[in-house]
Amino acid sequence: MNPTIELLKSHRSIRKFQDRKIPRELFEELIRAGQSAATSSHVQAYSIIHVVNPQNRETLAELSGGQRYVAECSDFLVFCADMKRATDAAERAGAEVVRGMTEQLLVASIDAALVAQNVATAAESAGLGLCYIGGIRNNPAKVSELLRLPDHVYPVFGMCLGYPDQNPEVKPRLPLTSILKEDYYQDEQDAELVAEFDATMHTYYQARSGGNKDTNWSEQLKPLFTSKLRPHMRDFLRGKGFEMK
Amino acid sequence: MNPTIELLKSHRSIRKFQDRKIPRELFEELIRAGQSAATSSHVQAYSIIHVVNPQNRETLAELSGGQRYVAECSDFLVFCADMKRATDAAERAGAEVVRGMTEQLLVASIDAALVAQNVATAAESAGLGLCYIGGIRNNPAKVSELLRLPDHVYPVFGMCLGYPDQNPEVKPRLPLTSILKEDYYQDEQDAELVAEFDATMHTYYQARSGGNKDTNWSEQLKPLFTSKLRPHMRDFLRGKGFEMK
Repeated sequence: MNPTIELLKSHRSIRKFQDRKIPRELFEELIRAGQSAATSSHVQAYSIIHVVNPQNRETLAELSGGQRYVAECSDFLVFCADMKRATDAAERAGAEVVRGMTEQLLVASIDAALVAQNVATAAESAGLGLCYIGGIRNNPAKVSELLRLPDHVYPVFGMCLGYPDQNPEVKPRLPLTSILKEDYYQDEQDAELVAEFDATMHTYYQARSGGNKDTNWSEQLKPLFTSKLRPHMRDFLRGKGFEMK
Repeated sequence: MNPTIELLKSHRSIRKFQDRKIPRELFEELIRAGQSAATSSHVQAYSIIHVVNPQNRETLAELSGGQRYVAECSDFLVFCADMKRATDAAERAGAEVVRGMTEQLLVASIDAALVAQNVATAAESAGLGLCYIGGIRNNPAKVSELLRLPDHVYPVFGMCLGYPDQNPEVKPRLPLTSILKEDYYQDEQDAELVAEFDATMHTYYQARSGGNKDTNWSEQLKPLFTSKLRPHMRDFLRGKGFEMK
């Protein structure tokens, strides 16, 4: 196993950061590494908002559900799916463009994710830590207003970046046989594999240094699907021009 | 700049592969590296179909728009957004789950993308090449049928993996100032930056070794948005239980 694979396998979210800034030169290297990710048909359908204003950082920490590290980390990014730039460019070049297709929502969301994961890997390779902030979708309209996002642009997730001030364990993942399937989807063994993973996660939650609790994977999932998590997303996206046509 | 950032910045799609198989041990390492990516609320809402059957590889090459490397590469993966496993697990644990939310479509699509980008980076770190196959969404219903994907699972994209038998140039990316914005979205300079990038891409297309052509970025984008690219996606997703509620 080479050092890069070793690095990827050692990922864990960092939520406590040193009071130390990432040098601008390194920061830009992370973004350039992000840009090098594959992009659907070269569309590059994303924008990254680098939130520097301290008051806006505080507001975003609150809007994300009171996640203090959003305000406290060295650099906070909001990765946006951006179908505006490319469709505007095609329009200026003389095309009568169609917007609001479901396919475009997917392309832009996936593009943003691929870029972000490269930024994450680049950051960790430089000794930095990071945490994705899906909580940005708790209040996407307010976030969009704060960041002045136009139509055809929406905030997919945030990312905290900085020098780690904690060293949490790597969180276990589902058994390989559960997520990797040969030729056909089959899940006859899934209940068994999930039960095995529930036991793994129970042990993890009991033993971990950052606060132990008596739970497992399936139990942790329950509130995510019983309540309609972020039921505003459809109407929010439609309002931003992602009409899912 | 460290070797991992160097690696990320050297990415280019590989579409011609040596007739040489990736060893199983390395292949599994790539998947494990993929699994280590961040995942929304630990949901791990993805499955990977490893397509081994040669006839199915041929069929998928055709369904993706006649992309021969789908059949010819060492290993072909289909990354699926999978909301079945996690919702089934929560249901077995006693939850009355809600499915079909727009948020769930996003979570699962993004999870699949994060995993895939880690697999891509791991592969390149081991001297392999890869190519994402968004063309899998040309015929998602037939792909789903072939791979026997159940409801709440959909094929996001494919990935060809193998030992490169070509050495294409790195494709330019948009100027950093176009995709990175401080505090607020602003695009006053976008037309100018895109014009600059069009010139860059024109030079690239004229000079590249793999077939030159007289075009630029904006021109290349035009057919993507004038025709309704993949207009079937909404109804396809709804039919698979991603109702975008």
